[in-house]
Amino acid sequence: MKQGKASIRFEHPVRIISAASIASKKEKEGPLGEFIDYIDEDPKFGKNTWEEAESQMQFLAAQKAIEKAGISKNKIRYIFAGDLLGQSIATSFGIMDFNIPFFGLYGACSTMGESLSLGAMTINSDYADYVICMTSSHFASAEKEFRYPLEYGNQRPFSATWTVTGSGAVVLGKKGGTVGIKGITTGKIIDYGIKDSMNMGAAMAPAAADTIYRNFIDFAIDPSYYDKIITGDLGYIGQTALIDLLNRKGYDISNIHMDCGIEIYNKEEQDTHAGGSGCGCAAVTLCAYILKQMEKGKWKKVLFVPTGALLSTVSFNEGQSIPSIAQAVMLEKNN
Amino acid sequence: MKQGKASIRFEHPVRIISAASIASKKEKEGPLGEFIDYIDEDPKFGKNTWEEAESQMQFLAAQKAIEKAGISKNKIRYIFAGDLLGQSIATSFGIMDFNIPFFGLYGACSTMGESLSLGAMTINSDYADYVICMTSSHFASAEKEFRYPLEYGNQRPFSATWTVTGSGAVVLGKKGGTVGIKGITTGKIIDYGIKDSMNMGAAMAPAAADTIYRNFIDFAIDPSYYDKIITGDLGYIGQTALIDLLNRKGYDISNIHMDCGIEIYNKEEQDTHAGGSGCGCAAVTLCAYILKQMEKGKWKKVLFVPTGALLSTVSFNEGQSIPSIAQAVMLEKNN
Repeated sequence: MKQGKASIRFEHPVRIISAASIASKKEKEGPLGEFIDYIDEDPKFGKNTWEEAESQMQFLAAQKAIEKAGISKNKIRYIFAGDLLGQSIATSFGIMDFNIPFFGLYGACSTMGESLSLGAMTINSDYADYVICMTSSHFASAEKEFRYPLEYGNQRPFSATWTVTGSGAVVLGKKGGTVGIKGITTGKIIDYGIKDSMNMGAAMAPAAADTIYRNFIDFAIDPSYYDKIITGDLGYIGQTALIDLLNRKGYDISNIHMDCGIEIYNKEEQDTHAGGSGCGCAAVTLCAYILKQMEKGKWKKVLFVPTGALLSTVSFNEGQSIPSIAQAVMLEKNN
Repeated sequence: MKQGKASIRFEHPVRIISAASIASKKEKEGPLGEFIDYIDEDPKFGKNTWEEAESQMQFLAAQKAIEKAGISKNKIRYIFAGDLLGQSIATSFGIMDFNIPFFGLYGACSTMGESLSLGAMTINSDYADYVICMTSSHFASAEKEFRYPLEYGNQRPFSATWTVTGSGAVVLGKKGGTVGIKGITTGKIIDYGIKDSMNMGAAMAPAAADTIYRNFIDFAIDPSYYDKIITGDLGYIGQTALIDLLNRKGYDISNIHMDCGIEIYNKEEQDTHAGGSGCGCAAVTLCAYILKQMEKGKWKKVLFVPTGALLSTVSFNEGQSIPSIAQAVMLEKNN
């Protein structure tokens, strides 16, 4: 049912049946490495290009999620997926062989939240028994798309983030699993005029603050409702901005806020500056870590809020600001 | 309700409350020019760049559609939109000021079909009273993104299409309007291995054939059910391939097939070779022409099938094929 101005509450939480995560060497060496389902230390995943590697990660993530769900591929009615590259090519080439009806999404690094939102709406309305929600990113394909050729070896400012090489896929359904999606709050595009593509945490923090704020209002709750509020890839600088922005609206989330970009790498040892980023950052952290912590009972209620910076190199080069969006998904463990 | 393997039938057709179309000089001079709501002959729409012009078209299309619907902007619960550019920047910058929760889509030139599908699912499930479904393309921003700098003045092969400069927006709701969405058939990614980005009609025809075929099977109908089957931007070469592919499956659609890419320009006088293309091609033709023909009672049942070629310049330069998708929407006039 509709809930407030931007949210939907599912009377029967949509079930997360299974989740799978794929990543590479740097993610393996990070704090979450042990939780990731499948690691290939070869950044090309045995393929010829980084883009093909990213497609392969999506293929592997979906395959693994289906396998874990214990259902046949034919039972999956829709795939909701996208990625960070121009024209979402990682997804198109990655999912092709599954032969499953497909809705292509673009939400930059908020894509995991967007795909879970649309997937949950689809299951809740009985349009499908099972759907896959998925996204990916790849350090090298993202650097090539957005920044400099890797061979150039440019210096990275401390506000820059490191794109996660990884993919996460979730199978949603009506029954099973220990974690459900209780509701969603859909983001609006927010633009505070920040133009520095090497400081995307600052650009995205206002979008995260807006979506989290509207989640509180729409559901008439406050931060005490949640055990954790987990953003996608704000990193250290964005985290500070987010906590500050919500403080100004009268909400203190400082003691329950977590950011996937902060969790996935070790700041001191891995030289990733402001943290991890990319669609794969929130997706891998959700599938490898967050859901497992919830299954173990460590957290019961989590607001998962992937954040996306909706820039392109063209908009950046034309001097435009960085519009951003955040898509919130309310995760809840069974009693 | 679910219908067959890839389709949904809406018991109460989702209503098309209003539709608006925006375009530029070449589209004005074409056969559909008189039907387009707003024309700006300046390809920059008074802005500084082609990309900003494309955003402005989306802004104008949404604004006009809301105005025609006779409702307040605040009643629109979601926008489903996307475009052809890397990272969908035309949409992100275009819709920002509406301050409406947003689901970003990427389906290349199938985007109008994808947005109508998700929009109709959303209305039918009572998640929203009103949504906007929208897309756009711009000749110059697309040439810059996918082909050559305009200043280079390259020759275009006869199999190439001309990207439509235009945007179309639809307001969907529960009541009103004379045309409804009775059902949808969601496309799978289809790749016959075609690699020529100057012949996208041939690349997309197999996807269109697959979606149309599955629409027939899922609803247990044949071409005689429809007054028209209208694809997005196959152009002349793609049309021949589509009719041939469906013939091989035992269906003859030759007497009812129409293609937006063929309709929107005058082949002899406008030098557009294989026809029009781009997300805006199907969107403008739907909003300016198809819906009006249905309202007038010329056609009662139309299968609207926007087609998308899911390539990027990166995938093309890496020698990859062109995966394609087609999203079908069943339009039906009230009795």
